Amino acid sequence: MFPNTFTQIVLRERPVADILPDTFESKTKAFDELHVGQNQALVQVTYLSLDPAMRGWIRDTRSYLPPVKIGEVMRSGGLGVVVSVGEGSKFRKGDLVYGMFGASARTLVLFPSLVLMLCAGWTEYAVANDKSMEKISPPPGATSLDFLNTLGMTGMTAYFGLHHVGQLKAGETLVVSGAAGAVGSLVCQLGKKAGARVIGIAGTPDKCSWLEGDLGVDKALNYKSPTFRQDFVEAVGYLDVYFDNVGGEILELALSRLNRHARIVLCGGISAYNDPQPKGIKGHLNIVSQRAKMQGFVVFDYAEQYAVAVKEIAAGLADGSIKSKFHIVEGLQNAPSALPMLYSGANVGKLVVKVSDEPSISSKL
Amino acid sequence: MFPNTFTQIVLRERPVADILPDTFESKTKAFDELHVGQNQALVQVTYLSLDPAMRGWIRDTRSYLPPVKIGEVMRSGGLGVVVSVGEGSKFRKGDLVYGMFGASARTLVLFPSLVLMLCAGWTEYAVANDKSMEKISPPPGATSLDFLNTLGMTGMTAYFGLHHVGQLKAGETLVVSGAAGAVGSLVCQLGKKAGARVIGIAGTPDKCSWLEGDLGVDKALNYKSPTFRQDFVEAVGYLDVYFDNVGGEILELALSRLNRHARIVLCGGISAYNDPQPKGIKGHLNIVSQRAKMQGFVVFDYAEQYAVAVKEIAAGLADGSIKSKFHIVEGLQNAPSALPMLYSGANVGKLVVKVSDEPSISSKL
Repeated sequence: MFPNTFTQIVLRERPVADILPDTFESKTKAFDELHVGQNQALVQVTYLSLDPAMRGWIRDTRSYLPPVKIGEVMRSGGLGVVVSVGEGSKFRKGDLVYGMFGASARTLVLFPSLVLMLCAGWTEYAVANDKSMEKISPPPGATSLDFLNTLGMTGMTAYFGLHHVGQLKAGETLVVSGAAGAVGSLVCQLGKKAGARVIGIAGTPDKCSWLEGDLGVDKALNYKSPTFRQDFVEAVGYLDVYFDNVGGEILELALSRLNRHARIVLCGGISAYNDPQPKGIKGHLNIVSQRAKMQGFVVFDYAEQYAVAVKEIAAGLADGSIKSKFHIVEGLQNAPSALPMLYSGANVGKLVVKVSDEPSISSKL
Repeated sequence: MFPNTFTQIVLRERPVADILPDTFESKTKAFDELHVGQNQALVQVTYLSLDPAMRGWIRDTRSYLPPVKIGEVMRSGGLGVVVSVGEGSKFRKGDLVYGMFGASARTLVLFPSLVLMLCAGWTEYAVANDKSMEKISPPPGATSLDFLNTLGMTGMTAYFGLHHVGQLKAGETLVVSGAAGAVGSLVCQLGKKAGARVIGIAGTPDKCSWLEGDLGVDKALNYKSPTFRQDFVEAVGYLDVYFDNVGGEILELALSRLNRHARIVLCGGISAYNDPQPKGIKGHLNIVSQRAKMQGFVVFDYAEQYAVAVKEIAAGLADGSIKSKFHIVEGLQNAPSALPMLYSGANVGKLVVKVSDEPSISSKL
């Protein structure tokens, strides 16, 4: 029933700038090295989440998570199916789970709230402690895949970033960069639900059409257009909340168009993730003159409030008012080459890697 | 009793970088051009406050105050004595006042909270509306000059920046740049009063000695020292609140040493005020990973709460636990050449210009 060997992908070398072909390497492991102990389960990974933050996880600097070590299985959010259980495990064969299959015990001890994060690892199979995973049952209108997107870390990031950090109010102007990405596209939709005027920024005409036509943003702007700066000023005027996924020049531009008491939600800075010498932000004195606030956040801090957000987003998925788009890459071996798509803007919507079949998803997609 | 003419200093030309000899010019005005109308008073200016923010006031950009116009009397905080009153004025001859003697009516309409700010103008005499000034009576242990410093805009900036924006708590580590300046030196003292470990940054060994010896900061660091970066890391470790008066490289360094949930209080960015091409901040992604907050503020927003701060600071002046140091330049004609001292770091403590004698101050200094 089980294969003799399975594949894991480990970090081979820390990239200086862009992720390269030799950043990761594939390892073949003997299946009989996997021993399922007490209160553990063996999980077959089905889908893995690819997230912009992963570039940070392989950088050897002080951050909100310890860096993935050289030779260690690449950390990632993911889903799986329980294929066998050890003595005393609370799981049953066939359970759909998310968890931290590939992460080290050290990480778990340091960051217990990660247990509530969708975290697996770039591996086909993993033995996981009961405590490091949770059983999921998709609500109406959703599949388990949504737990890697709107109902998972992506969704929580959008929800708590926009509402708790950004404190968006009805009638305000919200600008979202990386608007066609997984987090950005949900932020746009949550912004419209909250009664804001929403301007989304993306990098292709197709993405802009999707944002305006399908997601209902008031205006989508292509930052690669030669008239972008002028388009921004005309469409935005001045902004109340800027949800920043990209940093760099767009952040700079946003800082020049702040309303008084504006909030800049620093979710990410994708434009600089691969840049060993990122450009600086020059407009920070506008934060003083407009009494603005620029705040970073890490979604784990809101773990105790996830349920509220999940309920609200699930209701939107059920009634069709929240739309979720996936870009699925097939095969674990393609994870290393798929990850850079996030930084070049090649994906629209949530980028995931399909590692193995999960009947309950296949039947609904 | 009154002179035939008096002096005003007006903005002649907007500087591109540093303030130059021809940035301002002196004008001689005929005294009989001053007409004191209903609910007005004639004020003889005694002391003027020189503040780093003034560089911004003469820049023609959107900010929290409209720019001073070419040919307009330079805006500034100041004190004066009422020398004659118009019909219906609530003031009396001899009253000590602060007010907006030199500012245009337009500014007053746009920014009513400025009435509570110590704002005069670079002029020897001015006719002022009753509504644009307030009578002051120095509390025990203070002189009217303190209303240009710890009991005035400077004091309010330090107090609300540290407590309301920075939310400093006992036991935390506070780092203050521009620590020997008027705002910075009060922030250091308020920080010690609040039970924090305080590290002050200044630009000369004398300033550092004053901070450690007289003001009681835990450690003062000279940013011009060749070992400054290393000194900073050793003395600070990681910080909870960074009160930033300077921007630039020290802000960058502070961003690399944030504790989780650190607050960066953006009070000013004096290192960039005269720089037409300021360097950018590259470390802003640390704000994300440490869930930190970088917030600007403008002291006028706290006008309704000034009384609380004044009471607390006045108590400190009275019992000697808050010290206030003045650097007094004599003569209105020297205001233009004194202002750049703030940007070169030539002053220690609060920089003011003495325009005329005020008996109640002279007797106590």
